Amino acid sequence: MVQEQTGAAVQKHIGIADFTEITPTAPIAVGLHGGRAKCLQRLIRLDLPVPRTVALSFPAVRRIAAGETVDVDAILAGFGAMPLVSVRPSSQDPDWGGPGAILNIGMTDARHAELSATLGRAAADLLYLKFIQAYAVHVARLDPEMFDIPAEVVETTLHDMLFAYEEETDEPFPQDPARQLAEVLRSMARAWEGTSARLLRQAKGAPADAGLGLVVQAMALGIGPVESGSGVIQFVDGATGRPQITGRYLSQSQGRDALTADAGALFLTRDPRGQSLEEHCPDCFAELLRYGALCRERLREEMQIEFALEAGRLSVLDAVRVGRTARGEVRISVALAEDGIISHEEAVLRVPPRALPELLHHQVDPRGHRDVLARGIGASPGAATGRIALSSRTAQQMKSREEPCILVRRETKPEDIRGMHASVGVLTERGGMSSHAAVIARGLGLPCVVGVSSMKINRRDRSVTFGDGRVFFEGDVVTLDGTAGQAMAGEVALLAPALDDAFQTLLDWADDARDIGVRANADTPEEAQMARRFAAEGIGLCRTEHMFFAESRLIVMREMIFADRAEDRAAVLERLLPMQRADFEELFEIMQGHPVCIRLFDPPLHEFLPTGREGIRELADALDLPVSTVSRRVEALSEFNPMLGMRGVRLGITVPEIYDMQARAIFEATVAVSRRGDAVVPEVMIPLVSAKREVELVKARVDAVAAAVRAETGVDFDYRLGVMVETPRASLRAGEIAQHAAFLSFGTNDLTQMTYGLSRDDAGRFMGSYVSQGVFPEDPFHRLDIDGVGELLKIGAERGRAGRPDVTLSVCGEHGGDPDSIAFCRNAGFDYVSCSPFRVPVARLAAAHAAIDARRAALAEQAI
Amino acid sequence: MVQEQTGAAVQKHIGIADFTEITPTAPIAVGLHGGRAKCLQRLIRLDLPVPRTVALSFPAVRRIAAGETVDVDAILAGFGAMPLVSVRPSSQDPDWGGPGAILNIGMTDARHAELSATLGRAAADLLYLKFIQAYAVHVARLDPEMFDIPAEVVETTLHDMLFAYEEETDEPFPQDPARQLAEVLRSMARAWEGTSARLLRQAKGAPADAGLGLVVQAMALGIGPVESGSGVIQFVDGATGRPQITGRYLSQSQGRDALTADAGALFLTRDPRGQSLEEHCPDCFAELLRYGALCRERLREEMQIEFALEAGRLSVLDAVRVGRTARGEVRISVALAEDGIISHEEAVLRVPPRALPELLHHQVDPRGHRDVLARGIGASPGAATGRIALSSRTAQQMKSREEPCILVRRETKPEDIRGMHASVGVLTERGGMSSHAAVIARGLGLPCVVGVSSMKINRRDRSVTFGDGRVFFEGDVVTLDGTAGQAMAGEVALLAPALDDAFQTLLDWADDARDIGVRANADTPEEAQMARRFAAEGIGLCRTEHMFFAESRLIVMREMIFADRAEDRAAVLERLLPMQRADFEELFEIMQGHPVCIRLFDPPLHEFLPTGREGIRELADALDLPVSTVSRRVEALSEFNPMLGMRGVRLGITVPEIYDMQARAIFEATVAVSRRGDAVVPEVMIPLVSAKREVELVKARVDAVAAAVRAETGVDFDYRLGVMVETPRASLRAGEIAQHAAFLSFGTNDLTQMTYGLSRDDAGRFMGSYVSQGVFPEDPFHRLDIDGVGELLKIGAERGRAGRPDVTLSVCGEHGGDPDSIAFCRNAGFDYVSCSPFRVPVARLAAAHAAIDARRAALAEQAI
Repeated sequence: MVQEQTGAAVQKHIGIADFTEITPTAPIAVGLHGGRAKCLQRLIRLDLPVPRTVALSFPAVRRIAAGETVDVDAILAGFGAMPLVSVRPSSQDPDWGGPGAILNIGMTDARHAELSATLGRAAADLLYLKFIQAYAVHVARLDPEMFDIPAEVVETTLHDMLFAYEEETDEPFPQDPARQLAEVLRSMARAWEGTSARLLRQAKGAPADAGLGLVVQAMALGIGPVESGSGVIQFVDGATGRPQITGRYLSQSQGRDALTADAGALFLTRDPRGQSLEEHCPDCFAELLRYGALCRERLREEMQIEFALEAGRLSVLDAVRVGRTARGEVRISVALAEDGIISHEEAVLRVPPRALPELLHHQVDPRGHRDVLARGIGASPGAATGRIALSSRTAQQMKSREEPCILVRRETKPEDIRGMHASVGVLTERGGMSSHAAVIARGLGLPCVVGVSSMKINRRDRSVTFGDGRVFFEGDVVTLDGTAGQAMAGEVALLAPALDDAFQTLLDWADDARDIGVRANADTPEEAQMARRFAAEGIGLCRTEHMFFAESRLIVMREMIFADRAEDRAAVLERLLPMQRADFEELFEIMQGHPVCIRLFDPPLHEFLPTGREGIRELADALDLPVSTVSRRVEALSEFNPMLGMRGVRLGITVPEIYDMQARAIFEATVAVSRRGDAVVPEVMIPLVSAKREVELVKARVDAVAAAVRAETGVDFDYRLGVMVETPRASLRAGEIAQHAAFLSFGTNDLTQMTYGLSRDDAGRFMGSYVSQGVFPEDPFHRLDIDGVGELLKIGAERGRAGRPDVTLSVCGEHGGDPDSIAFCRNAGFDYVSCSPFRVPVARLAAAHAAIDARRAALAEQAI
Repeated sequence: MVQEQTGAAVQKHIGIADFTEITPTAPIAVGLHGGRAKCLQRLIRLDLPVPRTVALSFPAVRRIAAGETVDVDAILAGFGAMPLVSVRPSSQDPDWGGPGAILNIGMTDARHAELSATLGRAAADLLYLKFIQAYAVHVARLDPEMFDIPAEVVETTLHDMLFAYEEETDEPFPQDPARQLAEVLRSMARAWEGTSARLLRQAKGAPADAGLGLVVQAMALGIGPVESGSGVIQFVDGATGRPQITGRYLSQSQGRDALTADAGALFLTRDPRGQSLEEHCPDCFAELLRYGALCRERLREEMQIEFALEAGRLSVLDAVRVGRTARGEVRISVALAEDGIISHEEAVLRVPPRALPELLHHQVDPRGHRDVLARGIGASPGAATGRIALSSRTAQQMKSREEPCILVRRETKPEDIRGMHASVGVLTERGGMSSHAAVIARGLGLPCVVGVSSMKINRRDRSVTFGDGRVFFEGDVVTLDGTAGQAMAGEVALLAPALDDAFQTLLDWADDARDIGVRANADTPEEAQMARRFAAEGIGLCRTEHMFFAESRLIVMREMIFADRAEDRAAVLERLLPMQRADFEELFEIMQGHPVCIRLFDPPLHEFLPTGREGIRELADALDLPVSTVSRRVEALSEFNPMLGMRGVRLGITVPEIYDMQARAIFEATVAVSRRGDAVVPEVMIPLVSAKREVELVKARVDAVAAAVRAETGVDFDYRLGVMVETPRASLRAGEIAQHAAFLSFGTNDLTQMTYGLSRDDAGRFMGSYVSQGVFPEDPFHRLDIDGVGELLKIGAERGRAGRPDVTLSVCGEHGGDPDSIAFCRNAGFDYVSCSPFRVPVARLAAAHAAIDARRAALAEQAI
């Protein structure tokens, strides 16, 4: 219902200061009048034919919403004796939304009569009907169905609609343009204050006190007997960013009607499918092209222009930034920079790092149909179609038959890695953003959806039952959307990745700007090659445990576990040495002298033992031991909290033969590869350190192995021994630990787990509810917790540097690929971040943003 | 072999400055000449008849060991023309050991002839034989068997032994007293430098460079025709500390022979069993009594005096502090203080807090025989004898038959608590100092041995096989020594606890001295009563989860777990409310207005579900659900790392009905008990917090429950809501957390686990090797890690205080009972520590030590 003005005593007057006619020199500001008002001023400055426009400021609109009176007469004064205007919202950021535009304000019976005389009855009816409809629905908030404009407007239509309005509101349709405008302004101001509008814009990042501006513009009618209409035009394709004129024009229409019209709209350029504006109105079309070029050049952006023809005369009503995908943004920005319109730095800043993954992977085509089977956590972006494989073995079989497959598991474990390598996507019932499946899939660049608790795997009949009851069998085809976190039935159309020239150029510019290194976490030759392809500056984390899970090696590991004496263990491990050496030789070759940081063996030994009865029986056969001995050892090695158990350096100190073998493999590979080419300087990293003495003990043995290899081969080589800082204690004691460590690499995954006392594998069950209740502002495994974990990083970095000024500092946890976390690390003085290969482009771009932001902030500081 | 002096050029001369005759005014210092030398000087100052004694300093002995020449002529100069001397070690701390004394140095053929004339041939033979024996074995390092002195010395014995010496060394027995003394000094100096002597004393706390002094004393022969002999006397019983003259005297003996003689020794006081020194030599006896009183008064200590009679003349050769048990120390110190000889403060300081547990529990009688079946970690002190019970059910049955039993388990879980309550001791195969069994047993004051990996439980035939192959069946009797970490076969004699007047007096004095509070961790009425008995000032940690494991409650918990909706959960929990309320009422009554800090529900829900097939089937029956539903829920709730999972406040936020019910039970109990007596101000503690918002959310609900209970009962009451700081993040964010918390109680168990990334349940497998290799100086679960966890405590305390100046700070982890940790907490400004009831006396005493030490350090500071 329209609220009547009552209680004049408490109402203040919105006066001349609260609205401003937009002229080239008027004091219009984005922060005061909104983006649309500012953009219109820019168009006016470019001499584009913009109808007279008046801007209302945020405070003015806020007062209107609070019930203050509007001096609409003053606003309307400049619009002529019988004004006809539109009102559009103008929020600070166009993304924050706002109430819809209302056109044709000022249509009254009198004006209708006047227009009937000049434009004809049909045009006048249509203009009046459109206004009544908008006013009834948006201002008087009446039932929209009652005010539909029929396809065929007849003589009585207008009368019927005016009658309907009076019936519903018990008053005639307002005949005072000033009253009309006042009500429109009030309703739009109030809509902005509504709870759902507020929540929606806050979700897009708007502050709680975000203001709304409004623009009142003289109507360019678009309806009338001489060529009239309206349309939109843009000069690039928002999806690809490539130059292409797109848009529509519709005769006898207003606003953006051309875009939604079922039929009758014209193409803009010549088109074999039908008529075009280019042919129909070549002068207007030429003018529009000129406007587009002008906007691009002077507004330094690709704009979509909203225009109207009123009796053959072209008006520009509005212009907005062309909507675009991430790949569109990359190409548009690079093209603007290559044309000298913006700087390289500006182009880099225009592409948000978080948008990049969309370019790196297949994506589900947004135009396709989705038959969603299950929803979970989108743990690794991209999309893939394949047959369901319920075990790693099946996945490998399918791979050998060249059938793409999706590995579907309860959860994945280290022994599933080969199955993951064989798959095009991974779907798991359990786990969160940092579960094993998620971490590995991101490393491999595989789409991955985890935590699909509604899904149930039936091992007996090798099927999967989804939440809606549908049953899929192994071999059935599904499609995974790892970006949206969905599994879909059957095949779905996909878009290919976009690693084109523009992408490469942008990242080159980013590299010019950034001042923190970016390495990749890479465990396998494939990942190392990917790392190089994305121009990572080295490997920041090479986990070695996967190297022990290949079938031929697993049995050796198990023999080692069952060996009772150190000599026996060493003898068994001797057999792994040539394989490990070959692993490292291959990595060193691929990385061509770029640094490779190898983490010594980390997982608990029980991960190498079978758990089920059958597996234990098989192992007993293989080792020729009684079943009871095997199951007893399996039990003895099992742990309550494996994350906090006998792993990492604890294993290195208790069973030192493993590290001895690994060190030897690393150094022998170093010698072999250095002999063939550039000198390799391997980095050896000790995991899970919590005390200085752990480092001393391991260092003594590794140094001894290095000395032995030097003596045996007669080749001298360097290496760097460092520490993975994953426990809060290692951060706190970084000062003394750094005295024995050439580098400190912060493993933020484990550090987050321990700082919160929160297992990433178990957090999935409540993280969603925690984040939605605001207990944690974000999943700390996803976005670095600056307040807690971040403080430990800072403490560790400061103390590490104090203990050894030339110590290299880095982050090698999942956060190494997160833009905010990268900015934090850069500002905390870290030397590099390391992330999964597919995050390397994101990290390079984010690092550039951080550096540019910091330089600009410093300049701004100087300017003050 | 005796090393010949060679290469005089490199040998320096030990001159007059390196030895000092001990006179009342000589510059003798413990740190330079050792404790024995200093004690002898004190005896000389008291005018006791000490034979002439010369002290060699630590540097002199060190030079002797390094091969420098000794000017023994100068040393011997004061001992007469034909010197006869002994050499005894004098280390800084008598506990650090040292080489054995060597007597009768100076016995040569010539001296033998002379003594044969004055004392008779038998006495002269014996003195010479004794010296040859000592010299051959300790200086020349010959085979001891060859130099046994036969029971019946005949005319040829001396000749035979001299011949044997010459045979073995190819040189005659040295006939120059100076040469003899030089070799004795060198051999004793070298023995001190030996590896095993060094390791032994370092194990007792000696620094690496601990020095040895030596004392050379004129012999009082103890052998001869007129009454001669030797003995020791002390005036208290070292085991009890009670006044009692004990010791022996043996005619014709030297050194401490009287103590080891099979027969012939005299009692000291009149005794119906035989002759006594009191009768035999009343004057000497009276003198000895006078010496004892003089020592006690002037040396402020109970001393054991070594004396000799040489032809009826009494000499005091040495005096040492009476060896004593902890209970002996308590009584002796209290008696000295009550007699005004030392201050109360001094008495408090003399009893090491770590020694107290010995007084609180039964102990295995050190005189009894031990048939050790198994060794493990002594996880809770004391001793007990009972029948083996292999399950909690059996333990409860035995308890009901009043048969004491020892619960023997692989490991204990929360559901074993009732079994532990029913037992007199606990023995487990797995676990470390901080495993469930250990923590609970210490709380209950039960002796407990864990980590007995050599033991194997056979559930099928209900037996236990120990490491040596012996099999014991359920019902067989064993004895547990939780102090030494042993299980023994059958019954073993035990000593009863000693909570006598002296103990109470000492702790009263400790309370006068200390300035930090001591509370107890108590979950049950029994523990609360124990806490009061040991004068704890309140309950610092009442864990509530055990309250849910009683059979009648467990099924309710399980129903709640299977309820899908919040209302259903609340309805189920409603049935637990009266039981919980009764729990709290009882605790409040026992604590009589002393504060009770109740920790809200903490463990993960899966601890309440069965794991085996049978248990799941039973539960499915009980809940009338399909087995598949139950096993699916059990699986869904299982966690990879329960320590880091869905527990504590995470559960409180995700399933808030539990905390609602608990808060209501607490407040209703508060009202009920306050109505009957003093006002109760309960403390409600939120576990496992890592973010401020967690506290806000729980606080809002708890406040609402309090308001509801106030409204329903019409009774106003206060309560304090606080936070258990167990995650590193909570420490780091203590500033903001404290704004919503009246108190912060640091749970150092979990904090240690997370700071190190180390699960206490899994650490047992390598902690021993880690501590022995010095990786960790101590088990951090046992002794607070000052460097790492300690820093988090300090950070948390500082920030907590800054965020809320009146916040109460405490430690409620296991470390609350550890003396070093208590000193740390006191100095970091904590308000109180809380520990298991049986540690309360230790904590009170340790807190007193910390306060006195700090005051003395401050005084010393002022003095400078």
